[in-house]
Amino acid sequence: MTIPWNELFSETANELKPSPTRELFKLANGTDIISLAGGLPCDECFPVAEIAAACQRVLEKYPSAALQYANTQGEAIFLKMLSEQMKPLGVIVPPSQIQVVNGSAQGLEMLCRLLIDPGDRIAVEDPTYSGALMAFRPYRPRFITIPTDEDGIRVDVLEEKLKAGEDIRFLYLISCFQNPMGTTLSPPRRKALLELAARYGLIIVEDDPYGELVYEGDRPKPLAALDIEMHGELKHVFYVSTFSKTIAPGLRVAWIASPKEAINKLILAKQSTDLHSSPFTQYLVYETCQNDFLTGQIKRIRQINRVRRDAMLEALDEFMPESANWTKPNGGMFVWVTLLESMDDYDILKRAIEKRVTFVPGSSYYAYGNVHNALRLSFTQPTPEQIVEAVRRLGTAIKEATPARHF
Amino acid sequence: MTIPWNELFSETANELKPSPTRELFKLANGTDIISLAGGLPCDECFPVAEIAAACQRVLEKYPSAALQYANTQGEAIFLKMLSEQMKPLGVIVPPSQIQVVNGSAQGLEMLCRLLIDPGDRIAVEDPTYSGALMAFRPYRPRFITIPTDEDGIRVDVLEEKLKAGEDIRFLYLISCFQNPMGTTLSPPRRKALLELAARYGLIIVEDDPYGELVYEGDRPKPLAALDIEMHGELKHVFYVSTFSKTIAPGLRVAWIASPKEAINKLILAKQSTDLHSSPFTQYLVYETCQNDFLTGQIKRIRQINRVRRDAMLEALDEFMPESANWTKPNGGMFVWVTLLESMDDYDILKRAIEKRVTFVPGSSYYAYGNVHNALRLSFTQPTPEQIVEAVRRLGTAIKEATPARHF
Repeated sequence: MTIPWNELFSETANELKPSPTRELFKLANGTDIISLAGGLPCDECFPVAEIAAACQRVLEKYPSAALQYANTQGEAIFLKMLSEQMKPLGVIVPPSQIQVVNGSAQGLEMLCRLLIDPGDRIAVEDPTYSGALMAFRPYRPRFITIPTDEDGIRVDVLEEKLKAGEDIRFLYLISCFQNPMGTTLSPPRRKALLELAARYGLIIVEDDPYGELVYEGDRPKPLAALDIEMHGELKHVFYVSTFSKTIAPGLRVAWIASPKEAINKLILAKQSTDLHSSPFTQYLVYETCQNDFLTGQIKRIRQINRVRRDAMLEALDEFMPESANWTKPNGGMFVWVTLLESMDDYDILKRAIEKRVTFVPGSSYYAYGNVHNALRLSFTQPTPEQIVEAVRRLGTAIKEATPARHF
Repeated sequence: MTIPWNELFSETANELKPSPTRELFKLANGTDIISLAGGLPCDECFPVAEIAAACQRVLEKYPSAALQYANTQGEAIFLKMLSEQMKPLGVIVPPSQIQVVNGSAQGLEMLCRLLIDPGDRIAVEDPTYSGALMAFRPYRPRFITIPTDEDGIRVDVLEEKLKAGEDIRFLYLISCFQNPMGTTLSPPRRKALLELAARYGLIIVEDDPYGELVYEGDRPKPLAALDIEMHGELKHVFYVSTFSKTIAPGLRVAWIASPKEAINKLILAKQSTDLHSSPFTQYLVYETCQNDFLTGQIKRIRQINRVRRDAMLEALDEFMPESANWTKPNGGMFVWVTLLESMDDYDILKRAIEKRVTFVPGSSYYAYGNVHNALRLSFTQPTPEQIVEAVRRLGTAIKEATPARHF
């Protein structure tokens, strides 16, 4: 008997669609193409020598613990380090409330496993990180989209929804140098959001992968820190962060700080997913971070990225048509370009690929894919020279698609 | 407003219960206790020096690829190596049909994501691996339990169920040196099972973590190999295997070979779970395996484990009461001890812990937890001397609980 595969896939599997961003990775492999697409840290920022030295120390100091089966939550000394590392941000959480995960992506998936039944509502920024939408979709939630502006999510709109009785299981947001827009939730809105959370019992999933990538001014306190200030402990916020942007994404080491009421279930969610994360990579990150390594490493990444951001912003000034607008992020990895409403991101992408440059079409970041006149440009991986050339090519592609009267 | 956490956890989360095996890890940490509990490879088997050397080669040869974001399926050279590695077993599958996962546990979870909706039926050996049951349970399947004997799963009983019209979404089994029993599916039953699969369009998830751990005779061909012989390609079987028992579980590197009709959905299932596995650990395993390293490594593990198995079997002969029976596995990591029907595994465990020895209660391995007179003993981590002492202590505990007339 032939197996009728298409009838056998689960409803969850039927929700799974290829991600446009990751499909673009394939296009980004040509040698003559310059990619502004993937949100990749710069390869030159990887601390290869430090990681190599750390590998040796791990295998000398903890060979059995690093190579054997391990506990689900994470290695004790690593959890302790994470707890210490969050303190200067005001995120004061004991090691017992931290779960190690394989990249923030797994953290987001796991929070759905913990909290979402089909039909439950997740509030998201509109636009928001496409990878988060991809992690959420198999759980078949309904998305409540909240508009954003240069100060981040519109807390007043969220408040209207909550007032109207919308039953939101959690709000997902990137609080600092947001993906895809590069914008940051302003301090007054942070305060207002935490007050809303307290009033309505709202759960917030705060994704903070980019917070250390500051090129101008200071970063605001994480929502998790404000939550702790307000209640004396983490109450409403799951704080998700990662070493993907500060050490290397290929190690897949990230973590969730959880309210104490949820940590035990969260550990079980992790256990049922893959038993535990690699203790080897946890010790590897631990050893890499010794002697205050991260302080210098983050400084170095900031310097490299700042030059690239400046190159991109200057090139946009030079090569974009008058009708285009873009964000001027103080940190992170992305600039968000908005074109005339009549223009189409996939049409621009086709033209751009012909000119050997890629980006991610903005519609990927809208939960309902309903906005088509924006582009996400990443400035962290190509060199400043490549960025200028890429924006020049992109400018030409956009101008060719722009009605002449808008030049 | 206080957050009513218990009302907010998802139905999936409500299915999550602590695993008795992993809870036992906590008991197993005392210095005077000897653990026959966790299914841990021996620490002395970890090829620490080879892994250390491989780390350096990875960071010299592929620093960017190993540390950067990567593609979901796996690194090309690693997939190619996996494809080559399976060939001698008769599992002839191109790299394009392989998905890398974080340990077999994640592979099993992912196959549920692919195939299981709430209420769907999964056929399992009774008893079967408790970690598999844990991975399956959040998907809320119904388990169809199939009895086993010394030749593995009772294919005739499975046939009756299929004949009676039972709609089984997949059969999960460990085909070689099964966890928890140590038994192996016999060649005639393998043939009969593949014929059943062909007749009824049955999907088989073949978990094969222990197949290389042979101490006596040859291992039979995997079901995947027979499936390929019968149909010219992988048709009914998802073949799940791992480096956890041959190199080190702490690296969390395993893989699934998939029928070609399902691989694209499987890749998407992985992508939505955690984007991709660590390319660093994939390259690390790849480099560790160069120059036919595994052949010698497996030989070494077999030698060490064989001595430990023999020590356990001899100690059981010496210290168990007459009324106990146990399997004599030709490979793998486990011996399964069956006691008088009136006896209770958790009662024995309490007595055993008092005598400073642990094992896993057999009821953990029954999908419905309905059998209580068996114990799983693992012989791979303690030394031969520790094994003899542990079995002596366990024998005393069991004898104290055994009605005198059965001595």
